[in-house]
Amino acid sequence: MAAALSLLAVRALWPSRLLSCGRALLSSSVCSRGAAEARQPQPEQRLTSCRQLDGIRTIILNNPKKRNALSLHMLKSLRNDILHDAESKDLRVIIISAEGPVFSSGHDLTELSDEQSQNYHAEVFRTCAEVMMLIQKHPVPIIAKVNGLATAAGCQLVASCDIALASEKSHFATPGVNVGLFCSTPAVALGRAVPRKVALEMLFTGEPITAQEALLHGLLSKVVPEEKLEEETMRIAKKICTLSRSVVAMGKATFYKQLSQDIKTAYYLTSQAMVDNLASQDGQEGISAFIQKRKPVWSNS
Amino acid sequence: MAAALSLLAVRALWPSRLLSCGRALLSSSVCSRGAAEARQPQPEQRLTSCRQLDGIRTIILNNPKKRNALSLHMLKSLRNDILHDAESKDLRVIIISAEGPVFSSGHDLTELSDEQSQNYHAEVFRTCAEVMMLIQKHPVPIIAKVNGLATAAGCQLVASCDIALASEKSHFATPGVNVGLFCSTPAVALGRAVPRKVALEMLFTGEPITAQEALLHGLLSKVVPEEKLEEETMRIAKKICTLSRSVVAMGKATFYKQLSQDIKTAYYLTSQAMVDNLASQDGQEGISAFIQKRKPVWSNS
Amino acid sequence: MAAALSLLAVRALWPSRLLSCGRALLSSSVCSRGAAEARQPQPEQRLTSCRQLDGIRTIILNNPKKRNALSLHMLKSLRNDILHDAESKDLRVIIISAEGPVFSSGHDLTELSDEQSQNYHAEVFRTCAEVMMLIQKHPVPIIAKVNGLATAAGCQLVASCDIALASEKSHFATPGVNVGLFCSTPAVALGRAVPRKVALEMLFTGEPITAQEALLHGLLSKVVPEEKLEEETMRIAKKICTLSRSVVAMGKATFYKQLSQDIKTAYYLTSQAMVDNLASQDGQEGISAFIQKRKPVWSNS
Repeated sequence: MAAALSLLAVRALWPSRLLSCGRALLSSSVCSRGAAEARQPQPEQRLTSCRQLDGIRTIILNNPKKRNALSLHMLKSLRNDILHDAESKDLRVIIISAEGPVFSSGHDLTELSDEQSQNYHAEVFRTCAEVMMLIQKHPVPIIAKVNGLATAAGCQLVASCDIALASEKSHFATPGVNVGLFCSTPAVALGRAVPRKVALEMLFTGEPITAQEALLHGLLSKVVPEEKLEEETMRIAKKICTLSRSVVAMGKATFYKQLSQDIKTAYYLTSQAMVDNLASQDGQEGISAFIQKRKPVWSNS
Repeated sequence: MAAALSLLAVRALWPSRLLSCGRALLSSSVCSRGAAEARQPQPEQRLTSCRQLDGIRTIILNNPKKRNALSLHMLKSLRNDILHDAESKDLRVIIISAEGPVFSSGHDLTELSDEQSQNYHAEVFRTCAEVMMLIQKHPVPIIAKVNGLATAAGCQLVASCDIALASEKSHFATPGVNVGLFCSTPAVALGRAVPRKVALEMLFTGEPITAQEALLHGLLSKVVPEEKLEEETMRIAKKICTLSRSVVAMGKATFYKQLSQDIKTAYYLTSQAMVDNLASQDGQEGISAFIQKRKPVWSNS
Repeated sequence: MAAALSLLAVRALWPSRLLSCGRALLSSSVCSRGAAEARQPQPEQRLTSCRQLDGIRTIILNNPKKRNALSLHMLKSLRNDILHDAESKDLRVIIISAEGPVFSSGHDLTELSDEQSQNYHAEVFRTCAEVMMLIQKHPVPIIAKVNGLATAAGCQLVASCDIALASEKSHFATPGVNVGLFCSTPAVALGRAVPRKVALEMLFTGEPITAQEALLHGLLSKVVPEEKLEEETMRIAKKICTLSRSVVAMGKATFYKQLSQDIKTAYYLTSQAMVDNLASQDGQEGISAFIQKRKPVWSNS
C-alpha cells in the first residue's frame, strides 16, 4: 500500500487550477487477470486491454482507429491498468504495448480545441504527467514495447518507461510544433533521455528519428527485428520474474531517488540501501544461496 | 523586448571584477539585412558577415587568416549579429557558419598573454560566456553549421547552439591544455553535451574527435557529406520558417527552463506552458487548422 | 597537501553508523616506485600491485583467483595506492588495470553474509564509495584499462574513473539482483555514465553489455583491439605526462566542480578559473611559448 499511497502523493504538488478536475485515482479498475486465454472482451469504454499471466501484466493501447491517441479517457484507462493491484506479489513486471501500426500518436487534438475549457485542457496535461511519473514510482519494472510510430505524448510514454524495446521499423517524433502546439510536456521526458541537440532538432522540426537513432541517443535500451520483438521483450520480462520482487522494488525506488542527488548524497543513500538490502530476508537468502551454490528461494517481501 | 531584456539580465550575475570592462550590449548593430545579393561589404573592423533572407539569418565567422579566432572583437561582432533585431518577426532562425577550413580555433591567444591585464582577460571570458548563454536565451533556434575544425571556444560555440550540423570531415577538440590553458570554459558546454569520459579524454589529451564520434556522443545532431551540408542546414532552417515564431520561441524558452528542474517541477511548468500555448492565437489556429484539415495561418505573435 | 586534505574531508559527511569502523586513511602505503624492473614482490596481504615509472603509476588488481573481488582488503589496498604521494610532482597519471580475465567481479559476497555484522557491511560500502569519490578528487587523471569482465562494483570502478579504455572482448554488467542484492551503489556511477534506460535494463536483468555498447552509451571513452590496449593506454598516459601537472590538476578539479552547477554559476566559476590559470606560472609559460613558437617548459606548480 505504501507505494500506492506515495503514487497518490504526486497530485498533492499540483496547484488548484490544474487539480480542479481531479477524480478518485483508483476507482473501478477493470484490468483482467489470469490465464492468457481469459483475456476479457473489454467494455466499449475501455481503450486499453490488459491481461496478466505468470507475473507479467501486458497493457495494450487498443484504439488503433484513433492511432491510440492518449485522450483523457485513454490516459485514465492506462493509469488504472498500471495502478491496479500494484502491490500484489502476483505482479512482477508490466509491458506497455499497442494494437496497430501506431504505438501512440500522443494527445487527442480534438480534446484540445477551444470547444473544451482551459480546465479540461489542464486536466489532460495533469493526468498525462501523473501517468508518466507514476511509471517511475511503480514498484515493478515497466517496459515499453514499440512496433511502429510513437509521436508527441506517445514518444513521451516511451521515454518515461524504465526499459524500452522497439522493432527496427519503429520511429519517434515530437511534431506538435507543426500544429502550433510545442511538445513541451513530451520534452520533459525526451530531454532527459537524449542529448539536448537531438531533442531540440526533434522538437523544432517535428521530424522523426529511426529506432536505431533512438537507441544510439538513449531513448531506447534495445532494438530488434520486428519478428523478434515479442520474444525479446518476453525474455526480459521472464527474467525479471525470476528475481526477488521486493529487491527489485527497493532497487528501482533507490535508483530514481539517488539519480537526482549530488554524488555524495547519492552514495550515502545507496550505501544505506545496500546495508538494508543485505539485512532483508531475500538479501540474506540470496547471499546464502550463492555461497551454498544453490538456487535462491525468494519470499518476495 | 522581453527576451532582449532577459538577455541583458545575464550580466547582472557577474561580480565587479569580471564586469569592470562591460560595454553597452546592443550598441551599433551592423548586421546587414534583406536580399542575399544585398550582402554588404563589411567595414574592415567587422570580423563576421551577416545576411538575412526570408527569415533566415546567416552569421559567418569571417576571419579565416586568423582561423576565425574568437577574439574579443570577434565575440562582440557575433554578439551583435545574434542580438540584432532579436524580437523582429522577420527573423525566424539563425545559422552560425564560418569562412575557411577552420570553423573557429577558439580564443585569440595573443590577447591572453601577460601583455594584457587580468581585467582584459576577464572581459574576454565574460563576453564569451555571455555569447554562449544568450544563444539559449534567444527567441529563435540557432544552428551551428560546421565544415572543418572547431577547437576550444570554437568547440564550445558548437556545443552551445540549439542544433548542430557538421560535414563528415569536421573535427572537434579542446586542446588548451597543450599551451597550459585548460579548456575550463569550453568544458561547461562540452561537459553538458557529451558523456563525462569523452569530455575528460578530450580535455586531458587535447586530441580531436571526428564528426561521427561527435554525433555518437551528442555534440552534434546530424552529420552529412560536405556537399550536402548547405542543403541539409537550409532544409531545417526553412522548415523552422514555416512554423509559428511565437510558438517556437515559447517552446524553446520552456525547454531550457524545465531541463534544469526536478521532474515534478518540470511537469508543472510545462503543463502550464501547454495550457497557455493552447490559449494563444497560434495555438488555437493550429488546432483549428488541423481539425479542419487546412494549412494554418500563423500570426507569429 | 590541499588535495589530500580535501580527500580526507569526504568522510566527514558520513553519519556515525557508517563511519564507526573508520581507520586512518593514509597509513602505511606500500606502493612501490621507480623503474619498472623494480616491481616489488608484494607482501601476501597486498591484493594490488603498484609500480610507478616516468610519472605513470600503474595499479593492478592482483587477486585473479578471487576474480579481483573488491573485498574490504582490496578496497583499502586500492585506496592506499591511489592516495600514496598524491601530491608528488613525480606522479602525473594513474592507470588502474587488473591481472587475469576478470577486471573485477565487485564486492566479495562472502564478506556480505550474515556472519558479518551490519557495521562491517556498512564499512565495506563506505570504503567503496570513498574510493570511487576520491578518484574524482585526485589531482591527476585516473584511467581504467579494462581487458575482460567488469561487474557490479567492478563496473562501478570503471564508471568512476576519469577516462576508461577497454579491449573489444570486455563486458560490463551489474548482476547483483541475481543474488538478491540490487547494485544500488554501482548504479550511482553507472546511472551518471549511461542513459537511464540502458542502466535500468542492466540493473533489472543483470545481463552484460559489450565493450562496443559501453562505448556507444558513454561508459567508456575508447574501445580498441586487445593487442592495442596497452599501447593506446600508454599513449594517452604519456601524452598527459607532457602537460603541466598543475594545469591538469586545476582543470580536473574545476571540471567536476562546475559540472554539478547551473550553467551561469558554471561559467562564473570557470571564467575565474581561466583568469587564474592565465596568471599562473605555467599558464604564462604556455602562452609565451606558443607565441614564441617554442616548446613550453613547465614548472608543474
